[in-house]
Amino acid sequence: MEYKVKMYVSYKDGILDPVGKTTADALSALGYANVGEMAVGKYITFTIDAADADKAGTQIKEMADKLLTNPVIEKYHFELGQ
Amino acid sequence: MEYKVKMYVSYKDGILDPVGKTTADALSALGYANVGEMAVGKYITFTIDAADADKAGTQIKEMADKLLTNPVIEKYHFELGQ
Repeated sequence: MEYKVKMYVSYKDGILDPVGKTTADALSALGYANVGEMAVGKYITFTIDAADADKAGTQIKEMADKLLTNPVIEKYHFELGQ
Repeated sequence: MEYKVKMYVSYKDGILDPVGKTTADALSALGYANVGEMAVGKYITFTIDAADADKAGTQIKEMADKLLTNPVIEKYHFELGQ
């Protein structure tokens, strides 16, 4: 069964987000000072072929821990669709 | 009124995604060959202070076109919450 996966990776709370900070400052310089709490993470989409949703989920967690995220400083969540 | 925004930025169809390709190859090398159509984009979250949802939406589109995305090669969608 092929599943479509959407994974959202962002920094854990308390971790400095230099890209988010720089982006917010740039927006402010463009006159958009009403923007706050800017964070820039990864939006990863892919398909995965697995026997069922549980197996797909288990593999996604493995891939996230091994490669797709940095478990020390990043958190993630994902959506599984067909 | 403060709105919470989630923006998802990805490459337009047909645009080469080197990070996506490299990630898929790396996963395959780790033994995860059942993964396909890997694309890595940006997951941007922020708050915006606006009079109403329409005004917030208009400003978000402006910021996307000017700074948050590259309209030539990227597409995006966003969710507005409170």
